[in-house]
Amino acid sequence: MTATAVLLLSCPDQRGVVAATADFLARHGGNIVHAEQHVDPVEGVFFQRIEFELDGFELERDEIGPAFAPVAERLAMHVDLRFTDVPIPTALLASKQPHCLYDLLTRWRAGELPADVRAVVSNHPDHADFCAHLGVPYHHLPVSADTKAAQERALLEVLAGHGVELVVLARYMQVLSATVVDAYRHRVINIHHSFLPAFIGANPYRQAHDRGVKLIGATAHYATEDLDEGPIIDQETERVSHRDDVADLTRKGRDLETLVLARAVRAHLEHRVLVYGRKTVVFEG
Amino acid sequence: MTATAVLLLSCPDQRGVVAATADFLARHGGNIVHAEQHVDPVEGVFFQRIEFELDGFELERDEIGPAFAPVAERLAMHVDLRFTDVPIPTALLASKQPHCLYDLLTRWRAGELPADVRAVVSNHPDHADFCAHLGVPYHHLPVSADTKAAQERALLEVLAGHGVELVVLARYMQVLSATVVDAYRHRVINIHHSFLPAFIGANPYRQAHDRGVKLIGATAHYATEDLDEGPIIDQETERVSHRDDVADLTRKGRDLETLVLARAVRAHLEHRVLVYGRKTVVFEG
Amino acid sequence: MTATAVLLLSCPDQRGVVAATADFLARHGGNIVHAEQHVDPVEGVFFQRIEFELDGFELERDEIGPAFAPVAERLAMHVDLRFTDVPIPTALLASKQPHCLYDLLTRWRAGELPADVRAVVSNHPDHADFCAHLGVPYHHLPVSADTKAAQERALLEVLAGHGVELVVLARYMQVLSATVVDAYRHRVINIHHSFLPAFIGANPYRQAHDRGVKLIGATAHYATEDLDEGPIIDQETERVSHRDDVADLTRKGRDLETLVLARAVRAHLEHRVLVYGRKTVVFEG
Amino acid sequence: MTATAVLLLSCPDQRGVVAATADFLARHGGNIVHAEQHVDPVEGVFFQRIEFELDGFELERDEIGPAFAPVAERLAMHVDLRFTDVPIPTALLASKQPHCLYDLLTRWRAGELPADVRAVVSNHPDHADFCAHLGVPYHHLPVSADTKAAQERALLEVLAGHGVELVVLARYMQVLSATVVDAYRHRVINIHHSFLPAFIGANPYRQAHDRGVKLIGATAHYATEDLDEGPIIDQETERVSHRDDVADLTRKGRDLETLVLARAVRAHLEHRVLVYGRKTVVFEG
Repeated sequence: MTATAVLLLSCPDQRGVVAATADFLARHGGNIVHAEQHVDPVEGVFFQRIEFELDGFELERDEIGPAFAPVAERLAMHVDLRFTDVPIPTALLASKQPHCLYDLLTRWRAGELPADVRAVVSNHPDHADFCAHLGVPYHHLPVSADTKAAQERALLEVLAGHGVELVVLARYMQVLSATVVDAYRHRVINIHHSFLPAFIGANPYRQAHDRGVKLIGATAHYATEDLDEGPIIDQETERVSHRDDVADLTRKGRDLETLVLARAVRAHLEHRVLVYGRKTVVFEG
Repeated sequence: MTATAVLLLSCPDQRGVVAATADFLARHGGNIVHAEQHVDPVEGVFFQRIEFELDGFELERDEIGPAFAPVAERLAMHVDLRFTDVPIPTALLASKQPHCLYDLLTRWRAGELPADVRAVVSNHPDHADFCAHLGVPYHHLPVSADTKAAQERALLEVLAGHGVELVVLARYMQVLSATVVDAYRHRVINIHHSFLPAFIGANPYRQAHDRGVKLIGATAHYATEDLDEGPIIDQETERVSHRDDVADLTRKGRDLETLVLARAVRAHLEHRVLVYGRKTVVFEG
Repeated sequence: MTATAVLLLSCPDQRGVVAATADFLARHGGNIVHAEQHVDPVEGVFFQRIEFELDGFELERDEIGPAFAPVAERLAMHVDLRFTDVPIPTALLASKQPHCLYDLLTRWRAGELPADVRAVVSNHPDHADFCAHLGVPYHHLPVSADTKAAQERALLEVLAGHGVELVVLARYMQVLSATVVDAYRHRVINIHHSFLPAFIGANPYRQAHDRGVKLIGATAHYATEDLDEGPIIDQETERVSHRDDVADLTRKGRDLETLVLARAVRAHLEHRVLVYGRKTVVFEG
Repeated sequence: MTATAVLLLSCPDQRGVVAATADFLARHGGNIVHAEQHVDPVEGVFFQRIEFELDGFELERDEIGPAFAPVAERLAMHVDLRFTDVPIPTALLASKQPHCLYDLLTRWRAGELPADVRAVVSNHPDHADFCAHLGVPYHHLPVSADTKAAQERALLEVLAGHGVELVVLARYMQVLSATVVDAYRHRVINIHHSFLPAFIGANPYRQAHDRGVKLIGATAHYATEDLDEGPIIDQETERVSHRDDVADLTRKGRDLETLVLARAVRAHLEHRVLVYGRKTVVFEG
């Protein structure tokens, strides 16, 4: 596999926008390996993800942005340029429950998740051994109502110290304040254990049981200051029945949470997600 | 296929309840072809569905209830006795959209839905020809804000005139008043075009589009005076993406609505649904 | 909705191929509303579907092909040009079972399937009334082992007489000879009632029951002279259990057959399917 | 949770069979918490799983079997009696791939799988560290064509030494000989990476890619001497597309394999699986 570059683009929809970028790449000998686009006709916005081979491309990595700038400026384009051999520095945050954390770490170790996992942070000590076994730095940052502000300052220091650019809340049971969310806008992925917008708030499996639903779900979304209201990246549901009590729903839900979070994190790491308003464009993997 | 009888039972959970009924049937030479039970340990309620062959059973149909009464009384049991060769008299209510109505009628005609469809009622004339083609009585009962009370009286007369015991709202876009719902308590099945409790109320597909969900759903439930709050019988979801506009969601949702309503109606017609509180027990088909 | 044109392209993969087409459209004032591409790196083939608005495009419909020919020639491109306001003339073939046929006709009548349904052909008279009700010409062409060749000649005459370009086998239980399949290569869509390549041949639901599978499926594919071996367009499965006998599998399978065939036919009608070898590229709807 | 006993029963179908068992339990003060039954009308076989509370039951654990023997004898019943607080001694066999093994171990450690995991066996040393971290005995038994018979003898010794009663092939890439399979008949669970009976044999993901299927699957089954032909316990599929190469299918398939194997193992551990012929009855969890 040769290394590739990814252009994640958005701009007002207009004639010639596809040709302008394709032409820029063709002029410099670029070989496009994937291209996907989307137009929101209501908002009049054009979105595109173009992935092209660096091998044979006539520009060096640091020349691409400046060379593309005139095109971007002419089309009022927002540009995000990424290289697929430079994985995103990532921190995983967890509380006591291990299923999402262990799954992400196992996938990462198996080479399945293109992340640069730099740290695990938890308000509990439970996963220190497993992280030590894997050689991943583990930061135990306990928190209480009184110490929340100080703990979040410590958290931000840890994240900054590791150069983290993506924060994954792998069943981290603390609500992050606006300070943290703002510092990592659209770079904090959370897993909520219901098919949002149903069962917002605490104990969604109990809520689901009380309502007598025949499906449970899980939702991965970017965290915002409005809890459970951020842009949705992925969702999944599974059938349940009257036989399932709250414990059964919780157990079945764990599999959904694990799967949906892994898919969403993977989409982000592969530079396939564009956020606009409270929605996402998620290009195919 | 020999005819069978179905006992739908519920009572306080207690030792010996399974044996009491099994023993009653064994004493009269009954051959059980299906039996399913459920205990809600929180509420302490026992539910059971037993289906047994009438061929070889020593009691006549009208003797079964009286003979079982002492057992039922001793166990404080609620008993519903049905015969599978006596289909439930059913009315289908629709507005302009044909997909659920045509699907149910087609399944019924193919022998797939064990109903006795006696009438189609609509506030529009659109389906009169198709019903005439099938030989099903069609009642066109237009309605406006001013005529709602009178229209519902006419509706109740039509239902009574046909001896209807099950009302299926096959995308009938009028809210039924408490008068109708009370007259057919737990015998009115509605299809709502979202995965309840998300997107209660009007225009759920627009709500879903605005929220940017990655799944849409449909929910079949018994109608109650609280709109969209009745006991859920069945639900299903399907993946959607940023590419889907409201029209796409509506089109994809139609397939969900059709499928989920047919499954729920089938479950009711096969005497597999027990309602308790705002929940249902739906035994397997 | 303004009318659009669709270019379905395939050619050897090469640098500049995206730019060449995008540039052609941009030079003539084309506004691209959808574009999707795929590269098969093993075979070295590039596939693309581009949909652009005719409104504002500087070329007339009959000028587009000739104007694009030099581009296509230079890139050794196979080109299929379609207009979305010109639906494909279609014939539906069925035997006794109604579910797929009625579903396709109902979707078409509801404006959901962009087809030009010109005829229904059956080896049984069963659906004549329903087609008369809809105003669709119905051709009853009975067939036996002795009359197969003559019946197929009559079938080809009917298809030709109606100018048919797409043949949908909506549970048509006769194997078409190579003569018919060749005349409509990659234009005959069949629904097979298993998840191919499992349970090739007759009675797949009985085969599935005998094997004790926990899933049944349905497969829509282009018909070829090798039965059940043609390029797959779409597939779906559903859970079953030990409780399901062959009749249950058949009933549950009908819903799968109906849904999968409708999706596949829709994809073809929207010019989203490209065949290569024994595979398909199906672009997103 | 009080401890419960499970009776897994099968016998010729006959009148009174439900009553006989229910009556036996009622006579000894048993409180049934779950009961499910199934009749195969073609084979004329009755299957039942009854779970009842030991607390309050008048017989000691070792008295139940003898006391029930007359009932079983009269009805020609095959009886399997289990206690849910006595987990099945289990060995996990794996090769290089970690996903199924790590998932099962993680679920077991989280209290989700009611197993008594006594050993992990592998023909590779890769998972020794992780098992040491968990405190699970790890047996590295390398194998080659020449040493297969000796390796299997060593394997049988390890299994016997640990008192193993269930062997889970968690992507163990060696074909077990009849000697091993016979010693653990219906007690070896394998995961095959296709929706059997499609793509039997080697490289199912490559076979799937070559055939151009739109779904991939995984199948958990009891191992028999006929490879990939044993009774199926569970299956699942997932959508794929032309965009997925063999590596993508393999990655997506891993999630299916992991999930399906975990579900099948859980069903076996909860005494919910009955084998007959080449099929299974899997009662609901």
